[in-house]
Amino acid sequence: MKIIFDAMGGDNGPDANIKAAVNVINKIKSEIILVGKEEIIRSKVKEFYGKDLEQISVRLKIKNATETIEMEDQPTVAIKHKKDSSMVVGFNMLKQDEGDVFISAGNSGALLAGATLLVGRIKGIDRPALAGILPSYKSKFLLMDCGANTNCKPINLLQFAQMSTIYLKNTFGIEKPKVGLLNIGTEETKGNELVKESYQLLKDKGEELGINFVGNVEGRDAFSGEIDAIVTDGFTGNVFLKTTEGVGKFVKRTLKESLLKNIISKLAAVPSLPAINNFSKKMDYKVYGGGLFLGVKKPVVKAHGSSDAKLFEYTIIQAEKFVENKAVDKMIEAFDK
Amino acid sequence: MKIIFDAMGGDNGPDANIKAAVNVINKIKSEIILVGKEEIIRSKVKEFYGKDLEQISVRLKIKNATETIEMEDQPTVAIKHKKDSSMVVGFNMLKQDEGDVFISAGNSGALLAGATLLVGRIKGIDRPALAGILPSYKSKFLLMDCGANTNCKPINLLQFAQMSTIYLKNTFGIEKPKVGLLNIGTEETKGNELVKESYQLLKDKGEELGINFVGNVEGRDAFSGEIDAIVTDGFTGNVFLKTTEGVGKFVKRTLKESLLKNIISKLAAVPSLPAINNFSKKMDYKVYGGGLFLGVKKPVVKAHGSSDAKLFEYTIIQAEKFVENKAVDKMIEAFDK
Repeated sequence: MKIIFDAMGGDNGPDANIKAAVNVINKIKSEIILVGKEEIIRSKVKEFYGKDLEQISVRLKIKNATETIEMEDQPTVAIKHKKDSSMVVGFNMLKQDEGDVFISAGNSGALLAGATLLVGRIKGIDRPALAGILPSYKSKFLLMDCGANTNCKPINLLQFAQMSTIYLKNTFGIEKPKVGLLNIGTEETKGNELVKESYQLLKDKGEELGINFVGNVEGRDAFSGEIDAIVTDGFTGNVFLKTTEGVGKFVKRTLKESLLKNIISKLAAVPSLPAINNFSKKMDYKVYGGGLFLGVKKPVVKAHGSSDAKLFEYTIIQAEKFVENKAVDKMIEAFDK
Repeated sequence: MKIIFDAMGGDNGPDANIKAAVNVINKIKSEIILVGKEEIIRSKVKEFYGKDLEQISVRLKIKNATETIEMEDQPTVAIKHKKDSSMVVGFNMLKQDEGDVFISAGNSGALLAGATLLVGRIKGIDRPALAGILPSYKSKFLLMDCGANTNCKPINLLQFAQMSTIYLKNTFGIEKPKVGLLNIGTEETKGNELVKESYQLLKDKGEELGINFVGNVEGRDAFSGEIDAIVTDGFTGNVFLKTTEGVGKFVKRTLKESLLKNIISKLAAVPSLPAINNFSKKMDYKVYGGGLFLGVKKPVVKAHGSSDAKLFEYTIIQAEKFVENKAVDKMIEAFDK
């Protein structure tokens, strides 16, 4: 198996990307092809490890790409014009079967545009979307769309529900995944226009499409473990995701200080801190082990924009599993019916 | 000063509401008028305390209201037709100067409708909105709209920014409050249509309206303490708020279990637990000390729907301060200019 990895994308690229590839290579079976500015990658590897990439592992390769897509770039324009960017080169490799999965921490909009324009949508799906796995009490849930489509229609949310169902069934063996609609109240009459119309569509069409629609879900109940998938538009989904991250960081920081404040809890805190650290690390990794672009013909994984080497490593391992599970082939099959 | 308190509203009403009024009365200077079904209130007081309300304190009063507005009720319809509901009666008392502030934990939409239709908007404000104070690292920030207006236009967000600025300046003495726009990226080009247009409007008109607009803010940076106010539409704001609550609950629950898992951290956890408990209690109260309906001619406070007696107490104390600060009069003055 071959993993195509955008070496330039993300806030900490290319350093974190390179380190992740080197660190993870002996933990996986696949080959990793780093796509990006060859000269820079080679000199960084030399700087970090004092040897050439090929000397580190025969399963580490480079594919040169002279341009990069920036966060400020207009997605579609960038994909059309930056032909030699790490992202476009990576997508083309995936398209031409030079690899089995493409991972990038770059501009989400450009990733969606590239996935749609260069790799192509699965027949029957209007808008591919980003699916992320988040932790919940004693379990996990899928959030879709995590941020690919900022403006959605009810039909898109219906398809997100359909894709979530198929993915959870095939990958995690959940027979009838409970799908909820992210809303600001549990009552049918709550929400903005998009959510109200989506509710009706899910209620009317859900059953015949095999969706186990359980109604509205509020953010405060999302983590209860009662729901398997939450569907929402990409704007709201991304706010949800980043708020989760913000609260997590805030709680960790404040809690540590609160524990260190007085002498009794300070004494107690010393052995508690590893538990708190482990806990928050686990949460981070679970949340940000990369999002999957469901609805695209081939596996595309979005790594977290602010990934460090450790998080990239985790994302690469998850991506390998995603390919092994044949999640995309199963999605194509399901929509063929 | 007189506090008009909806005795029926909220998930735990009227029991929690009654207990809160009784518990808080000696901690405040104001009179509390409980609005709701008199017979029920009297019998509950008898049941809980073995005496009549008047025997507990001369500053506790009842105003009879025979109907209640439910969570499922259509807001405007309910306000127009349920004339003898605790909410409508409360609003009318506020309007007729029979009290200085109205507190309710009932249906948010109905509260907005009542505030607008019965009490009236401040001249120059198209849509009043719910402002909530949330904790941030070593400080706090104001979130507006927390959930009153599910469908907004850019002009509404501009006015939310204006109201936030005036409120923070007058109540907390922050000279040039930093106002951010809740978005899914920091770049100008990010977001859905509403957010993109609001960004331009805030950029173009912000300065002349005295708004210190600092650009887009992502959920993960909201709690950093760098921002004084975050403006957003009521749908997104409410998702933000409830997600914050959900993550908080989840973290608390999981962290406790994680601490209790092994013997070393278990021993450590015993003295740590009070610190964790205090911390999360503090967070809850800060977040949910009631939202303020800014943009309405008189003080209206929305208590958290799932308030228990303790949280209602805290909200009542905050409401008294809100009236003492003359926040509404100062808002009217500012918009008069």
